[in-house]
Amino acid sequence: MTLVNTQCRLAARPVGLPQASNWSFVEEPVREPAPGEFRVRVEYISVDPAMRSWMNAGRSYVPPVEIGEVMRAAGVGRVIDSHHPDYHAGEYLYGTFGVQRYAVSDGKGVTRVDTTLAPAPVHLGALGFSGLSAYFGLLDIGRPEPGQTVVVSGAAGSVGSIAGQIARIKGCRVIGIAGGADKCRWLVEELGFDAAIDYKAGELRSQLKEHTPDGVDVFFDNVGGDILEQVLARLARGARVVICGAISQYNATEAPRGPANYMQLLVARASMTGFVIFDYAKRYAEGVTQLAQWLRSGELRSREDIVHGGIEQFPDVLLRLFHGENTGKLVLALEGGE
Amino acid sequence: MTLVNTQCRLAARPVGLPQASNWSFVEEPVREPAPGEFRVRVEYISVDPAMRSWMNAGRSYVPPVEIGEVMRAAGVGRVIDSHHPDYHAGEYLYGTFGVQRYAVSDGKGVTRVDTTLAPAPVHLGALGFSGLSAYFGLLDIGRPEPGQTVVVSGAAGSVGSIAGQIARIKGCRVIGIAGGADKCRWLVEELGFDAAIDYKAGELRSQLKEHTPDGVDVFFDNVGGDILEQVLARLARGARVVICGAISQYNATEAPRGPANYMQLLVARASMTGFVIFDYAKRYAEGVTQLAQWLRSGELRSREDIVHGGIEQFPDVLLRLFHGENTGKLVLALEGGE
Repeated sequence: MTLVNTQCRLAARPVGLPQASNWSFVEEPVREPAPGEFRVRVEYISVDPAMRSWMNAGRSYVPPVEIGEVMRAAGVGRVIDSHHPDYHAGEYLYGTFGVQRYAVSDGKGVTRVDTTLAPAPVHLGALGFSGLSAYFGLLDIGRPEPGQTVVVSGAAGSVGSIAGQIARIKGCRVIGIAGGADKCRWLVEELGFDAAIDYKAGELRSQLKEHTPDGVDVFFDNVGGDILEQVLARLARGARVVICGAISQYNATEAPRGPANYMQLLVARASMTGFVIFDYAKRYAEGVTQLAQWLRSGELRSREDIVHGGIEQFPDVLLRLFHGENTGKLVLALEGGE
Repeated sequence: MTLVNTQCRLAARPVGLPQASNWSFVEEPVREPAPGEFRVRVEYISVDPAMRSWMNAGRSYVPPVEIGEVMRAAGVGRVIDSHHPDYHAGEYLYGTFGVQRYAVSDGKGVTRVDTTLAPAPVHLGALGFSGLSAYFGLLDIGRPEPGQTVVVSGAAGSVGSIAGQIARIKGCRVIGIAGGADKCRWLVEELGFDAAIDYKAGELRSQLKEHTPDGVDVFFDNVGGDILEQVLARLARGARVVICGAISQYNATEAPRGPANYMQLLVARASMTGFVIFDYAKRYAEGVTQLAQWLRSGELRSREDIVHGGIEQFPDVLLRLFHGENTGKLVLALEGGE
């Protein structure tokens, strides 16, 4: 069976926000699977802030995407044909299939998607790396205790919205920071956050002070920049700052900004700790089981922001993240048939 | 007995390096001790980088020194006369006696100094808060393991020189960062550091790379600024950054500089933690006992940089710290009689 692939490749490293010239689109036939391989038709592509960091050269927690390579992306796809003993045509699989219509895989890093548990896009969000990052980052690094105050930045994003809800489930007072009245309303009215601060409306400092009278015990940071500094100034004694991301800095054209008041870590006897979800691979099953149970019980809500389109839409969909246009998990759902 | 005191008071809050206009000197009689009080003649004043931070207004780990107050300082003094049941004339005591010739005390925060254990100035250095900060900061927060690489900044200072030696005693590879060839030679030849980097000579980045081929497991930071950033770029997986001080930033006239590459904490799955030695009050005895034992066995060396002078020398002695002129514990030894 001859299939024609469409791929989005990295053409040049961006300076600042990615532009059209950073991408190239290639159409080419998909090779037949060798023994031990299978072919997947990608149906959903996970669109994540971290993708921007993968486009940069240099040392990071994963190797950079090289110029000319298909852009790295997690996705859910369906097996078309297989010479692999474990995977069969028609099955839904999760894997790092890239920003392309079809992928050939040997099964490495691939997991089966149980669509009876939740629709496929949820496996990229609440039951995928977003949910797992929220789960292990908050509970293992943040270690919130009942009654403590937890602040989450990027709270209406895929990770933040789950992290805040887990903190609520664990009996904490949860304050979300997000951009825009709609997102803030959603956090409080739909997700049960105790309060939400719209950083685009009014002064962050005074709003934070109002909502964290006893200081901040856990800060789950997805944003960095000014928001990180403002929250550091509110840390309670012994606070834990969880560094999950820094979306405000990923497109900086000058040197990124570090927290000028990091000595608040000393004043508050606090710690700031980074983590990478891949280190929790042995505990993914524990995380997914718990997240799925909370989803079933209704304690946890999942929201996917699904954009329907083709591979060529990917660059525009990615920019939505940096313009703060998504609420919940941003997913590109690929249209069209084989 | 009428005693005339000389006091160094904070006259104005400094911008940048403290200047003569920030201080005032007052001579006045010392009041007689009330019941439960005693009078001390201060003999040694501890001169510490943290003093600069006490001169600023605003939230910190201790209240600021107020304008018109005697400058806060730890010191060792000898009891002159006493109406306190526990302390008697002639005894050597450690306390926060301030930058003044005489102090009246009710015994709060005062401890007896055993001069048979070590001379009085050592009780301000290796057996005082410098040694205790090194001991608990390195061991409790840094948690170094034998064979790991420990980097200490401000390594020729009172805390850094002890922290590095403790790391050596614990079987670590120890790299000190200090300013000047003499200090570096002292660290390696006298204190047994594995290497010392002179940040004033040559590029810090390449020297760090040379001396930490496997990365940095523990960074004990007294300096901040560029040195903090350069070491963050070398963190090994799971590294611990201990924030003890930030002497490079204390006199900044612009907003202090935060580590622009703090996301290296994520890349390295590392943590950055501040501490305040006062939190270890219940374990001081443990620390002093261990430090004294290492001093006795010769495993730990103490060095005091003693300046002899009067109270009016204090402002100049303080500036030595910020010009990097001291090696080891900087102490002002007060001259002259009663």
